[in-house]
Amino acid sequence: MTDPADELIPSVFARDCTSRHVMADVTGKWGGLALAALHDGSYRFNALRRRVDGVSEKMLAQTLQALERDGLVVREVQAAIPPRVEYSLTPLGTRVAGKLKELIDLLESEIGQVRVAQAAYDDRFHP
Amino acid sequence: MTDPADELIPSVFARDCTSRHVMADVTGKWGGLALAALHDGSYRFNALRRRVDGVSEKMLAQTLQALERDGLVVREVQAAIPPRVEYSLTPLGTRVAGKLKELIDLLESEIGQVRVAQAAYDDRFHP
Repeated sequence: MTDPADELIPSVFARDCTSRHVMADVTGKWGGLALAALHDGSYRFNALRRRVDGVSEKMLAQTLQALERDGLVVREVQAAIPPRVEYSLTPLGTRVAGKLKELIDLLESEIGQVRVAQAAYDDRFHP
Repeated sequence: MTDPADELIPSVFARDCTSRHVMADVTGKWGGLALAALHDGSYRFNALRRRVDGVSEKMLAQTLQALERDGLVVREVQAAIPPRVEYSLTPLGTRVAGKLKELIDLLESEIGQVRVAQAAYDDRFHP
């Protein structure tokens, strides 16, 4: 029998849990890079697009919209001619981006070890 | 002029950097969940598939193969009838999964705050 209280515990392993959807926004192809970039400070749209090398205008706009809806990113329109639109992190977004940044730092610092593993794997399976 | 030394510094922000591809494996739709599950201990394929609710057999196999190639996951075939195939983390995989687990714990614990933000956003844009 399922204890009803169990259903109230969020779990990314459950396919319908909000936390899994938020995890997808945060770690999706562009979401993680956008958050990590914004961890360094606020960005205007085009500057952020240059920083996240390879993202299309449409994909970056969709990514930022999802992160804004989740309460991780703030979009601020500043009165100017032409109007300036700036993106920055909320307090929760800053905490989430901090965790992502630790993950990225680890991957970047151990990339040599990953390359060695990839070469060994490719030798073994496609010599 | 580009300093050649700059090209040796791994950056997930550069579209061709190995670290960006590894980040995609680690944080992809299923990669993150598989690593987080394996953080709790080794799994046989079908048990892992049940844990990562919603993943297809084919997608889980592809995900594990990419993580094995990156040197994060070990696939071990044990002599038995029928043969048992077990998946576990390498030392680097354990460190990466630990960082992911911290991110997941944060998202799960703050999911209430996310839900409030989502409701406010939806009210504002689709009242």
